[in-house]
Amino acid sequence: MLTNVEHIGIAVKDISASNDLFTKLFNVPPYKSESVESEGVTTSFFKINETKVELLEATNPDSAIAKFIEKKGEGIHHIAFEVDDILAEMKRLEAEGFTLLNPTPKRGADNKLVCFLHPKGTNGVLIELCQSI
Amino acid sequence: MLTNVEHIGIAVKDISASNDLFTKLFNVPPYKSESVESEGVTTSFFKINETKVELLEATNPDSAIAKFIEKKGEGIHHIAFEVDDILAEMKRLEAEGFTLLNPTPKRGADNKLVCFLHPKGTNGVLIELCQSI
Repeated sequence: MLTNVEHIGIAVKDISASNDLFTKLFNVPPYKSESVESEGVTTSFFKINETKVELLEATNPDSAIAKFIEKKGEGIHHIAFEVDDILAEMKRLEAEGFTLLNPTPKRGADNKLVCFLHPKGTNGVLIELCQSI
Repeated sequence: MLTNVEHIGIAVKDISASNDLFTKLFNVPPYKSESVESEGVTTSFFKINETKVELLEATNPDSAIAKFIEKKGEGIHHIAFEVDDILAEMKRLEAEGFTLLNPTPKRGADNKLVCFLHPKGTNGVLIELCQSI
């Protein structure tokens, strides 16, 4: 089961400027920042009720975020749904015809195991499944 | 205050096919459908914890959703945040330098008063404020 919109990921060019902008929008500052070297990103997190807004800036021109911004510009990059049992959910969704971008869960930001679904199979929406470690 | 991610709006070409797809994804069907003639859209809603996923299909080639799909393809169209007092929040955000796309609240789907912020001022993210009527 997908039990919650855990976070919404937004690709930005300058995370420092965007932290200021989203602090004005939400009237509350980000509660943490984190770099994920394996993904080539720096992230910051805001919390709105049960959902986080994650800003992502590329630290490396070959990262998925750098390529996304080059192709589409800044904007919403993905939606992450919380799952109780990521392996069971990956198996269920694969059987339903969805394509997994990583066949085994990988380590994401914020102490999560994550798996992405191919956006071609989800109306152009990049969907992340995530489970707290 | 923006108190909750009320919904995430996804632009789709064929809402009937997408209802089937997202029913497989969420393992639960949409709980309602609604047409908003003034916006030229048919919508359906899924509920995941405190957040809804709203699918939007254009019913009119001049609608914002038809133009979005023509330009960018299917995908995430907007994020809607719940507010307690939409007029106060519109005033606060305008004073912070955000641009309101409608200067007075308008009637949206799902019995809401809504106001959109210009995505040029929010890193390419179309943000909706919404208040239950």
